[in-house]
Amino acid sequence: MQRVYNFSAGPSMLPLAVLEKAAAELVCYGESGMSVMEMSHRSPEYDAIIKDAEAKIRTLMQIPDNYKVLFLQGGASTQFAAVPLNLIRRTGKADYIVSGQFSGKAFKEAQKLGYDVKCVATTKDDNFDHVPVVTRDMFRPDAAYVHICFNNTIYGTKYPYIPDTGDIPLVADMSSCIISEPVDVSKFGVIYAGAQKNMAPAGMTLVIVREDLLDYAEEKMPTMLEWKTMAENGSMYNTPPCYAIYMAKLVYEWILGLGGLEVMQAMNRKKADLLYGYLDSQDYYIAPVKKESRSMMNVTFVTGDPELDKKFASEAGKVGLKSLKGHRSVGGMRASIYNAMPYEGVEALVAFMKKFAAENPKA
Amino acid sequence: MQRVYNFSAGPSMLPLAVLEKAAAELVCYGESGMSVMEMSHRSPEYDAIIKDAEAKIRTLMQIPDNYKVLFLQGGASTQFAAVPLNLIRRTGKADYIVSGQFSGKAFKEAQKLGYDVKCVATTKDDNFDHVPVVTRDMFRPDAAYVHICFNNTIYGTKYPYIPDTGDIPLVADMSSCIISEPVDVSKFGVIYAGAQKNMAPAGMTLVIVREDLLDYAEEKMPTMLEWKTMAENGSMYNTPPCYAIYMAKLVYEWILGLGGLEVMQAMNRKKADLLYGYLDSQDYYIAPVKKESRSMMNVTFVTGDPELDKKFASEAGKVGLKSLKGHRSVGGMRASIYNAMPYEGVEALVAFMKKFAAENPKA
Repeated sequence: MQRVYNFSAGPSMLPLAVLEKAAAELVCYGESGMSVMEMSHRSPEYDAIIKDAEAKIRTLMQIPDNYKVLFLQGGASTQFAAVPLNLIRRTGKADYIVSGQFSGKAFKEAQKLGYDVKCVATTKDDNFDHVPVVTRDMFRPDAAYVHICFNNTIYGTKYPYIPDTGDIPLVADMSSCIISEPVDVSKFGVIYAGAQKNMAPAGMTLVIVREDLLDYAEEKMPTMLEWKTMAENGSMYNTPPCYAIYMAKLVYEWILGLGGLEVMQAMNRKKADLLYGYLDSQDYYIAPVKKESRSMMNVTFVTGDPELDKKFASEAGKVGLKSLKGHRSVGGMRASIYNAMPYEGVEALVAFMKKFAAENPKA
Repeated sequence: MQRVYNFSAGPSMLPLAVLEKAAAELVCYGESGMSVMEMSHRSPEYDAIIKDAEAKIRTLMQIPDNYKVLFLQGGASTQFAAVPLNLIRRTGKADYIVSGQFSGKAFKEAQKLGYDVKCVATTKDDNFDHVPVVTRDMFRPDAAYVHICFNNTIYGTKYPYIPDTGDIPLVADMSSCIISEPVDVSKFGVIYAGAQKNMAPAGMTLVIVREDLLDYAEEKMPTMLEWKTMAENGSMYNTPPCYAIYMAKLVYEWILGLGGLEVMQAMNRKKADLLYGYLDSQDYYIAPVKKESRSMMNVTFVTGDPELDKKFASEAGKVGLKSLKGHRSVGGMRASIYNAMPYEGVEALVAFMKKFAAENPKA
């Protein structure tokens, strides 16, 4: 069976070299005589794996020493609750920017928990076709934090800048752009990212948190959501999602082997330029996102005819270009071209787009 | 590299046949052209996997139709908070039986969340060497639920009976004995189990909940811990721990292929009888657990001399009998002999125990 080009928004493609290595050592890892899946998380063998994963992500992202790195159970949605539960007690209120569905969910989760949260900016009225432009004066000066979603998977937008929040810690959901390019970690109070887009299989979340922000957890909150407890126990207060962490380690190794995040960024830029370049060169497909907010990871486009959109995704699937259907809430098409998508995959997609346009003239 | 016998308490051994199948289809699953790790959880291929996992665990455990089956993120520790958050509002209070460390943690977690919980019975004063004998009159009649840990991994005890709680729903943490033998699900309100002992890699929890218990969730609680939300969305409110669910499906298939839980129980009984039989036949090793509370999954024993215990675990490790050291909180030795441990592994252990006793006479 030949591998397809999988444009799924997440879970999504993993590097073939990583999958092959994982398969080769699945039954017996190194000299351990067992699978990584079977290892006690307290064993020296597993301890070496999780420490290596942390060392590699620290190198890759150049994470400053005053930040803790946590590998936690669950996905970003779990962090939507963890963020206010860990931070809001600092001042009692927090500000959110709503630039798409997930940032909206994060905001609603904080509301559901009964907190004083304010949506200070949103591009909802523009169908989230760009990210808001925010300035420091828009935030409540006594906000405990400002929450953003840095890359919006569903709409295909990304902040072209890091919002200036002054002394207010900036908290960013980076699930769909983590380790796709260099980012200045020191500009953020907290960065979190579900694994299943650019890092590992679903079931693990990376949390990078500035140490001085660990002291504000609510007393009456689930222990498993407490960053401080997890930080004090090296992410092993209980059994961590061991295998997903191992897979993340392999992915970090793969990127380091390529040359790090600058190289990764260049590769991603080249793929995105090819696809956006084609989109800008024709008028059969429409790319709804404003140019300055375009995501390098998730590229959305429509034909303008929902029936044609449907046919597009279906026919693309038949030639090995999978999961191009847009999110069920927005329709159209979406090509998620994360780190693991090869350039050849985007070339194949553009070739298919040309062919489809030629064969399916609009009425 | 030869595989070892891994007596780890969790994560722990998985069936070799399951690991080999997973390795063989890791890069390309069936006709999908991708790894299960890469599949969109909304794809027809993955939908078939999670539905099959549910169907198989329903068959295996003969789960009645009025129970929901959930595959959730995280481990049992996450459920320590989820249990009161989902159930206690039924009456406002709950009763706990503390028979070991994890049931103690579950109790403390409910206390931490500020709830009126009562420890109605504990065997702490006996170093948890047996499980409490409880009767219906010991519970508060208006308790929302009674919580137990059915098999105590650290101490090696298990309830030889299902506590009679009358009309009060019984909630059981079955992390370390799930699918090791048949159990009458209808006697429980909720059964939950972390995957990493008898089911799958760490990072997934099975929750089996009676439908009428889904209506008591707190309003101000993390959405990701709400059983009802997960039940209404077929465990896919957000991205589930897809790969661990797939692995669980392979494990369920493996047990069904052997003949189901009666056969599994007979195999486990035979292994446990061999080990306990040897322990009862000699006086070099002491098995601290009272006979009626002995666990079929976790067998604890000591030499009576901490230095010899240390030597035992170390020398056993050198001959491929791994992770026999007891839990750091109790010392001694523990052999976890879950479903995936072959009979030959227990034979090898007993042979080693005899040899070690002969070669290391006590002073």
